[in-house]
Amino acid sequence: MPPRISDSTVRRLSHYLRGLEEAERRGVPTVSSQDMAVWGGTTAAQVRKDLSQFGSFGKRGMGYAVPRLAQRLREIMGLDHPWKIALVGAGRIGSALHAYPRFRERGFQCMAVLDSDPEKIGQHWGSTVVEDVADLERIIREREVRMVILAVPASAAQEVADRAVSAGARGILNFAPTRLRVPPEVSVANVNLVIEMEALSFDLTRKARGG
Amino acid sequence: MPPRISDSTVRRLSHYLRGLEEAERRGVPTVSSQDMAVWGGTTAAQVRKDLSQFGSFGKRGMGYAVPRLAQRLREIMGLDHPWKIALVGAGRIGSALHAYPRFRERGFQCMAVLDSDPEKIGQHWGSTVVEDVADLERIIREREVRMVILAVPASAAQEVADRAVSAGARGILNFAPTRLRVPPEVSVANVNLVIEMEALSFDLTRKARGG
Repeated sequence: MPPRISDSTVRRLSHYLRGLEEAERRGVPTVSSQDMAVWGGTTAAQVRKDLSQFGSFGKRGMGYAVPRLAQRLREIMGLDHPWKIALVGAGRIGSALHAYPRFRERGFQCMAVLDSDPEKIGQHWGSTVVEDVADLERIIREREVRMVILAVPASAAQEVADRAVSAGARGILNFAPTRLRVPPEVSVANVNLVIEMEALSFDLTRKARGG
Repeated sequence: MPPRISDSTVRRLSHYLRGLEEAERRGVPTVSSQDMAVWGGTTAAQVRKDLSQFGSFGKRGMGYAVPRLAQRLREIMGLDHPWKIALVGAGRIGSALHAYPRFRERGFQCMAVLDSDPEKIGQHWGSTVVEDVADLERIIREREVRMVILAVPASAAQEVADRAVSAGARGILNFAPTRLRVPPEVSVANVNLVIEMEALSFDLTRKARGG
């Protein structure tokens, strides 16, 4: 395995790429580490450190060539090709995610929406028809789905994750408030809204005491 | 200001607390660092290190007294009292968040749902009526709202954040795909779903190359 890259570096790469693509649209030819630092909410030194983990980019004092660096970042991040995804859970969160235009813009193609509720199966969501989660494995295999968004209750999350992985899914965006156990070749990103609110509570409490 | 606590420590505290409260419900009197390590997805040494940043808990080899440690963690995290929150943005994400039972269970009381769309203002969401975001400042002041969930378009997020902060909000859970500028006394947690998907893409790409 290559050396581990920290989560915060990976998230900054997303912000650098967003800024570079915006610069590309505006026809800006080069940008500095300082420009990228603003996009990433960090320092110019950290930008150079983040990029140095993936090779050598640009020359000191010359700035970075925008289209070339954007393309390299897309390659590094695996965003130079589309990803086929499936959404499991056609509830409120699932519906909000399905309507989210930025997934499509970034190349995440939703190949299926699945649920176990007979009232939801067969519903039309735009051009998508909600399908039976009983067919999860077949759908993942046939449509070459590589990532799954889990918007199911905590009690169902591990079982659905196991089935998705057995059928070939390798990435899981997990909205269920539970910690999934997956084999090492599978990556999980957790979105846990209560934990985010608790982190705010912690921060505000600490500031109130220290201030 | 007290020394900085890392984001990953803060998130593990949430998981420890969840496990401790579950143990409390089951009537378990004491737990070990190893039990807590499983809940936090970490090692027993890391559990002891995390806790040591907040004082001394339990005796070596004796385990931790469950109700006492749970109560201390609630105090440290500011979860020993309710938080008054407001939700700005009555779209799909807002609706999913409003229906999310775990916010209420954890003491986050939704005092208002606001939107700028005349078609949404006046809608009944359970016992809540959607109000006009023009009244944001007054509502925050009168109802003593301290945290705001922003589920508005990126183009509106900074303005709404500025207004919420000017009226006294100190925590922002931001779903808009934009980086908010706030004064140092304000804490922001960002939930950016595209960035989470991009992190999965990065991870899978790196594993595929390294494996």
